[in-house]
Amino acid sequence: MKLQTASVLLGSTAAAASPAMQTRASVVIDYNVAPPNLSTLPNGSLFETWRPRAHVLPPNGQIGDPCLHYTDPATGLFHVGFLHDGSGISSATTDDLATYKDLNQGRQVIVPGGINDPLAVFDGSVIPNGINGLPTLLYTSVSYLPIHWSIPYTRGSETQSLAVSSDGGSNFTKLDQGPVIPGPPFAYNVTAFRDPYVFQNPTLDALLDSKTNNTWYTVISGGLHGQGPAQFLYRQYDPDFQYWEYLGQWWHEPTNSTWGNGTWAGRWAFNFETANVFSLDENGYNPHGQIFSTLGTEGSDLPVVPQLTSIHDMLWVSGTASPSNGSVSFTPNMAGFLDWGFSSYAAAGKVLPATSLPSTKSGAPDRFISYVWLSGDLFEQAEGFPTNQQNWTGTLLLPRELRVLYIPNVVDNALSRETGASWQVVSNDSSAGTVELQTLGISIARETKAALLSGTSFTESDRTLNSSRSSSSVVPFKRSPSEKFFVLSAQLSFPASARGSALKSGFQILSSEHESTTIYYQFSNESIIVDRSNTSAAARTTDGIDSSAETGKLRLFDVLKDGEQKIETLDLTLVVDNSVLEVYANGRFALSTWVRSWYANSTNIGFFHNGVGGVSFSNVTVSEGLYDAWPDRKA
Amino acid sequence: MKLQTASVLLGSTAAAASPAMQTRASVVIDYNVAPPNLSTLPNGSLFETWRPRAHVLPPNGQIGDPCLHYTDPATGLFHVGFLHDGSGISSATTDDLATYKDLNQGRQVIVPGGINDPLAVFDGSVIPNGINGLPTLLYTSVSYLPIHWSIPYTRGSETQSLAVSSDGGSNFTKLDQGPVIPGPPFAYNVTAFRDPYVFQNPTLDALLDSKTNNTWYTVISGGLHGQGPAQFLYRQYDPDFQYWEYLGQWWHEPTNSTWGNGTWAGRWAFNFETANVFSLDENGYNPHGQIFSTLGTEGSDLPVVPQLTSIHDMLWVSGTASPSNGSVSFTPNMAGFLDWGFSSYAAAGKVLPATSLPSTKSGAPDRFISYVWLSGDLFEQAEGFPTNQQNWTGTLLLPRELRVLYIPNVVDNALSRETGASWQVVSNDSSAGTVELQTLGISIARETKAALLSGTSFTESDRTLNSSRSSSSVVPFKRSPSEKFFVLSAQLSFPASARGSALKSGFQILSSEHESTTIYYQFSNESIIVDRSNTSAAARTTDGIDSSAETGKLRLFDVLKDGEQKIETLDLTLVVDNSVLEVYANGRFALSTWVRSWYANSTNIGFFHNGVGGVSFSNVTVSEGLYDAWPDRKA
Repeated sequence: MKLQTASVLLGSTAAAASPAMQTRASVVIDYNVAPPNLSTLPNGSLFETWRPRAHVLPPNGQIGDPCLHYTDPATGLFHVGFLHDGSGISSATTDDLATYKDLNQGRQVIVPGGINDPLAVFDGSVIPNGINGLPTLLYTSVSYLPIHWSIPYTRGSETQSLAVSSDGGSNFTKLDQGPVIPGPPFAYNVTAFRDPYVFQNPTLDALLDSKTNNTWYTVISGGLHGQGPAQFLYRQYDPDFQYWEYLGQWWHEPTNSTWGNGTWAGRWAFNFETANVFSLDENGYNPHGQIFSTLGTEGSDLPVVPQLTSIHDMLWVSGTASPSNGSVSFTPNMAGFLDWGFSSYAAAGKVLPATSLPSTKSGAPDRFISYVWLSGDLFEQAEGFPTNQQNWTGTLLLPRELRVLYIPNVVDNALSRETGASWQVVSNDSSAGTVELQTLGISIARETKAALLSGTSFTESDRTLNSSRSSSSVVPFKRSPSEKFFVLSAQLSFPASARGSALKSGFQILSSEHESTTIYYQFSNESIIVDRSNTSAAARTTDGIDSSAETGKLRLFDVLKDGEQKIETLDLTLVVDNSVLEVYANGRFALSTWVRSWYANSTNIGFFHNGVGGVSFSNVTVSEGLYDAWPDRKA
Repeated sequence: MKLQTASVLLGSTAAAASPAMQTRASVVIDYNVAPPNLSTLPNGSLFETWRPRAHVLPPNGQIGDPCLHYTDPATGLFHVGFLHDGSGISSATTDDLATYKDLNQGRQVIVPGGINDPLAVFDGSVIPNGINGLPTLLYTSVSYLPIHWSIPYTRGSETQSLAVSSDGGSNFTKLDQGPVIPGPPFAYNVTAFRDPYVFQNPTLDALLDSKTNNTWYTVISGGLHGQGPAQFLYRQYDPDFQYWEYLGQWWHEPTNSTWGNGTWAGRWAFNFETANVFSLDENGYNPHGQIFSTLGTEGSDLPVVPQLTSIHDMLWVSGTASPSNGSVSFTPNMAGFLDWGFSSYAAAGKVLPATSLPSTKSGAPDRFISYVWLSGDLFEQAEGFPTNQQNWTGTLLLPRELRVLYIPNVVDNALSRETGASWQVVSNDSSAGTVELQTLGISIARETKAALLSGTSFTESDRTLNSSRSSSSVVPFKRSPSEKFFVLSAQLSFPASARGSALKSGFQILSSEHESTTIYYQFSNESIIVDRSNTSAAARTTDGIDSSAETGKLRLFDVLKDGEQKIETLDLTLVVDNSVLEVYANGRFALSTWVRSWYANSTNIGFFHNGVGGVSFSNVTVSEGLYDAWPDRKA
């Protein structure tokens, strides 16, 4: 079909923005016709086009790494922060993990420009009961730029400094003194030295013979030139958090090495960033639990191009801490992706105690809640993207509860016994021929999920799609959502023959005659794939709108169910929040990406099937509407 | 006699200064009548009144600590630097230790305001063949103020940074990076951490098993709260001078303790400043020689007044370096004053190699040349001093050669055997009943002294002054200098009866019917005293012109001369450079102070005597005129 020429209707919108809050242009765009080159549109004109509703992002501008999260002991509110416009950190509070209130009117709660940070404020983390019992931010104060793992490091670029809030987190006031960690350890030629993450851990207290219980530690992310990425471990030295004792690179990996053969956890790459360290059990956070870390790794295709990180892996790792030369070292035992999306990165989490307001309401136990960043412009490499037209860039993904996930009754075979994987065998029943596996559980925070599902919902009948030849077919849903805000959940059961076959099965969403996005599981490479080749008509007119496929590995194990060996059911949840797609599977897989459909009527859903073999879809439910995460923000 | 009312003649001077160089006001002052309150005069009107001629000071403004000295390997010129106007360091070159040329038109060669030093640049020292073979300054970069030993130390106030000159010392360009010593050693609660002094020392190389010969070391001056003053020792770690390895407090003393009973070397006080470390033999600098340090100590009368250093002692110390816990420590064996003057402080010296231009011309061997600062305003405590009227403040004292001085044939008695003194016994001849002593030799640099003595000179006949009762008498010289620029040298021999008596003997200078300054040796307390009670008519009209007496201890030993026991002859050299008086004695004593006579005719000299006993004056010579140290400066 021939598309009409794009038409942009210039005119006044109902709410004329004040100059100071000029986030949206006075332009009406017709989403029923083909888009022009979007970068030719007035600034702000695309503000609403792809803006998510239920996600954390600032009123306008660019969001960067999440950080500065904490539960305020005084209020029980959970604070969620993020780098904002490259000029410091903004923050918001939530009492339910669904809706948020801006602090400081959405402006930064700390900005660069002090003596310690003349150029930038990078990620920091908060000691809730810090100096004088007040929330105390340990953050990276930046004095020299550029900083990149691929170029020589300018000494003194990154130091770690303190700031304290005495107004409920609206402002973090820098201490009137120099950095508390004034540089990397002596003569370390680092690739980076940033993103201090404070945590407490009784296992480390014991191993390190720390003087007090509840000693604070911090890991600083980075690495060493010519050696590889690392986490530098420090320990609180004094009650005023002035000094942090260096305890060594408690974890380091060779340059550009991988976990196992690289299948399940990408690359350790060239440099670590935004490392969190925490401990989990099957219910959530447990100070005595298994030690986990989330981290971003900065990688590159080879040969390296100076100052270019072409791969950002958002990983998690589990491991054990053990004594090492008078200190402690971390040895991984499994590792995986916290989110497989190309633009997913820089997660920051925090202990959310059972005593917090959100948990008090929901009855949740102590948890570790992590927010992943979804870069809006391919880490500033999306040339031509209509950034000014949109007037916001990037978002945080939905808050995720992390826990230790056990997978029982898994057939003891090569698939379950693979090493260097994102799971490990924790026990086996040789008589039954099964093992129990353990991995990181990743799921949308319960309150968030409940809110997402609180809208109108409808169910699509169970069905089995079968095909005797290898071709694609799409079966439209009987009913599709009216908007691009919905949750689709479903379970897919595969025949044993699917293993190793060319079978692909899943859903087509955001679909119209012009556009569609296909999300499917592909057995041949055990992957969940998001095919975005036809996602956006805008990608055909405008640079910087990525159409490449997203891929994440998920192994569906053979399991023993009622005495019968079956392929594990694929338990799929898709959250579509306008242009933001989050794919969750089986409590242990997440992949998020941008799906920037253009046409107003690109809201249809269909079953997708390709290949030989029958796939049963069941419990197919669509919840419409999502919720407004920012009820206090004025339109 | 009744003094006329002061008269200031307002009018044009011959050379009208350009506005940019407005250092002197267009005012003519009559020095034949009594002064008014000088602070009522126009700015700049007193520029010439007390300005020295042969000393190092900037074209105008305030001079602070000397520092940044070095011999440029490329030119052989000796560079003499100094803090200037509290805004960085200015510098000048000399090829003869007498005349100087301003670098950078007398403006600072490095100024504060960079990322590392937003507030101030404090003292630094130079590695002549540093980064890329260029003169490289290691200096204290200041980020927070105030800094004072009497108040809590703000972390990060003082760091040590590098700057390099590639234009012959006219500009030192800061490295575009953070400090190379980003803070004190871990968790040190310092009183100060500044004035890095770089040096080489083969004795330390051997003791510390340093990898290369000619390793650079640096001592940083300061101390620890609650413990006492200290020198922090560091060693060069890499060829680029990026890293300096901490080797410990190689020397520290308890808070406000003294050397011996405090008689000969004042107090170690509360904090060390401007420590130099170097090694000497009897000829001058010898890398394998005896280790010396010069240092300023910050002291106070008790109780301490916050932010007030009421005592500044300009000390030297000699000692031995010995292994200590895998590092090295310094143990003093004698200590004294480098200059006893109340305003003398913050000396900075440097090796002046035999290959330098000055030494090549004079034939001098390797030397250690030190410049002492003479504060012009009692360390900013001279309230009411006509600073703006003078438009310059303070000066450096004449360059001094330091060496090991041996004193032979000293009678082996309690006087020579005193411990905790500024000398030590190095050998004894029990048959002769004598010992040989050793101390620090302090004398005006040979070229400087030769230049000072190069003017018109005249001799006063030898004479013996005798008195049978204790009263003062002044015998005028037959001839006195016509100006207030001269050197007076003389030798005074005392009878054995003088020991312990009330005898005082010396000279009265800058004398007229209205004013006079008396310099004398006083046996009762073995002191050279500068009585300034009548020095300046201006002190009677204007605040901030100190009239207090200056005192320095000098022991005249009993010596065996031609088999006869005598009191050592007092060998006195007085340099009067307008208001600057430097008193040198016996190659081991210096005392400098301000003598701000007002009247034009206050140029007379007389012999001074008080007390019972005959004193013989011999070799009494006056050299007039001095020399102009700054021939290139325009009037």
